[in-house]
Amino acid sequence: MSATPSAADAYAPTDRTVPTRSRERASYDRDLVHAILDADYLCHLGFVRDGAPVVLPTLYARVGERLYVHGSTGSRPLRGAGEDTGLPVCLTVTHLDGLVLARSAFNHTINYRSVVVHGVARQVTDPAERSTALDALVDHIVPGRVADSRPANAKELAATAVIALDLHEVSAKVRTGGPGDDPEDLTLPHWTGVLPVTRAYGTPEPADDLDPSVTVPDYLAAR
Amino acid sequence: MSATPSAADAYAPTDRTVPTRSRERASYDRDLVHAILDADYLCHLGFVRDGAPVVLPTLYARVGERLYVHGSTGSRPLRGAGEDTGLPVCLTVTHLDGLVLARSAFNHTINYRSVVVHGVARQVTDPAERSTALDALVDHIVPGRVADSRPANAKELAATAVIALDLHEVSAKVRTGGPGDDPEDLTLPHWTGVLPVTRAYGTPEPADDLDPSVTVPDYLAAR
Repeated sequence: MSATPSAADAYAPTDRTVPTRSRERASYDRDLVHAILDADYLCHLGFVRDGAPVVLPTLYARVGERLYVHGSTGSRPLRGAGEDTGLPVCLTVTHLDGLVLARSAFNHTINYRSVVVHGVARQVTDPAERSTALDALVDHIVPGRVADSRPANAKELAATAVIALDLHEVSAKVRTGGPGDDPEDLTLPHWTGVLPVTRAYGTPEPADDLDPSVTVPDYLAAR
Repeated sequence: MSATPSAADAYAPTDRTVPTRSRERASYDRDLVHAILDADYLCHLGFVRDGAPVVLPTLYARVGERLYVHGSTGSRPLRGAGEDTGLPVCLTVTHLDGLVLARSAFNHTINYRSVVVHGVARQVTDPAERSTALDALVDHIVPGRVADSRPANAKELAATAVIALDLHEVSAKVRTGGPGDDPEDLTLPHWTGVLPVTRAYGTPEPADDLDPSVTVPDYLAAR
């Protein structure tokens, strides 16, 4: 995965997307980056405010080579992204896949898949793109939901800011597999292996005011 | 939760810990902050490098009013935290608890519990505190594991950097409950409610080189 594919299939590494350690875990493969981004919808968005870092959780969706993040027009990052220069951000997505228990405390680690995107976020002002982005956000989180909900009206659209971040300066990092114990530790008596971790969905809980004749839609029941 | 408790029970709000929106969801309650931090071990750590934000996933543990994060001595944030001035950071922890499906696309949201910590991270140089921190990291992620693994030796301790971040400027944000549809949407025919989301653990997977006579320890089997 650390081999560099052709330009069309990979993002070009930059100073800040080449990690200082565990470089063998880094990848710039476009399909891998897309797969990691599409497997989640909650990211951590970092920006600088008054010289200090701020990291906020937020929802996102990918459309081609662009990520969309939405929020209130009054929120800080959204306001910054509306200025002429845009807002420099770092958007990070992390799937935790397993706790890796080595025989030595030192070699404990986690299995994960992460993507880090650096770039300048800009507010989306074009009405058609805003509408596309908002639909993508709903359908990315709950596929099928756009067709089964009331579309936003003009007042709601006006109250929603959407920012776009293009996928140019991007890297993925992946760790898989079992523990890497040192040879001299292999005979120690401790259990060693991986405890898998996943995101799980429970039984849908109807709202108190839902008409009891409305059944759980297929797109939720299958989850 | 938005009421301000006595100073001993709450963190003092500051300009950057009072949100610009959804203020009713913000809390400075110490017990709530501790509970959210203790229920997870993966955070997103933000810092500024060459004027731009960087957000990296990393493991943490809480000991009293201090968070510990560890990493290689060669990693960027750890190096920065070793300088005299320390490293200004923002450490954010987010639990996703549910997808909230309203009848209107606009009112879709998520249930979550998050904590945002602002402060200056500093490298821990005291050997006793470093050892305490590393034990806390292992036992916070897998309670009981410190007693069932080989302790770090001098060489390993030297290769591990630990940074500390004190809990002074801290806020929590929590959203719970069902959808908040507008009154005029209540008769729309769409299913509405919450799809619960949790972190789930699978069956422990023994390493290929594990002696088959070593059984899964109780502290893992119970998870």
